Amino acid sequence: MADAQPNTMIKNINHIAIAVNDLEAGQRFWHELMGLSLDHVARVADEGVDTAFLDAGGSAVELLYPFEENGVSKFLEKRGPGIHHICFEVDDIEAMLAKLHSAEIPLINETAKVGAGGKKFAFIHPKGTGGVLVELYELPQ
Amino acid sequence: MADAQPNTMIKNINHIAIAVNDLEAGQRFWHELMGLSLDHVARVADEGVDTAFLDAGGSAVELLYPFEENGVSKFLEKRGPGIHHICFEVDDIEAMLAKLHSAEIPLINETAKVGAGGKKFAFIHPKGTGGVLVELYELPQ
Repeated sequence: MADAQPNTMIKNINHIAIAVNDLEAGQRFWHELMGLSLDHVARVADEGVDTAFLDAGGSAVELLYPFEENGVSKFLEKRGPGIHHICFEVDDIEAMLAKLHSAEIPLINETAKVGAGGKKFAFIHPKGTGGVLVELYELPQ
Repeated sequence: MADAQPNTMIKNINHIAIAVNDLEAGQRFWHELMGLSLDHVARVADEGVDTAFLDAGGSAVELLYPFEENGVSKFLEKRGPGIHHICFEVDDIEAMLAKLHSAEIPLINETAKVGAGGKKFAFIHPKGTGGVLVELYELPQ
């Protein structure tokens, strides 16, 4: 393991992603009943998911509905709906990935991908995190 | 379902709780490698868990290790380590529980319990939330 680091790499929880069998029903629960305001809905064609982001006071709840076969549809088949991953915003995603790589933590993405709006993202394999699928974000400045 | 509500009931994500098989190893990963600062460790004798809270920029990562048989140990046996629940801070927990009850959402705690430091807390059953064990906190003012 690496030495203790100053708490500068992770800035906050960007979002918690929840796999759902029905995006409308998910929005009804989280918006109408729990009172989270809907930020936006978007189809992420590259990943085969429809998403809804709801504001949770500095973090977001992301609802994930797979419209084709992919990792999220497999998750739903195997485990049913529930928390799919947690995403942390970091200030330097490549430095974080290099650090994890050198500690032999298995990475789903060895280098960051670039998504909508220029954000960089990468996933860490649950085998390396104690069973948690972790996403990292670095947002454009 | 209830009518749409203003986004005043949920204030933020207080913490994400992760069930671990080894609290020391969990702290090594989340503190030393991911860089989250350790806020405190505490035994919650009433619930049979040892906990470690790490700061994640306004929210926390809570590591949960069961030192006796309980819901967390059953979770670990059944699913292995991973995200156990998500906790939202609300401004009025009794009002939120009443609203959920009237919408026939199954509650693990029909009324709030009072924990360390006077915080009120209650759990919502995953059957009512789309597979997510949700905890609510109301913190003392």
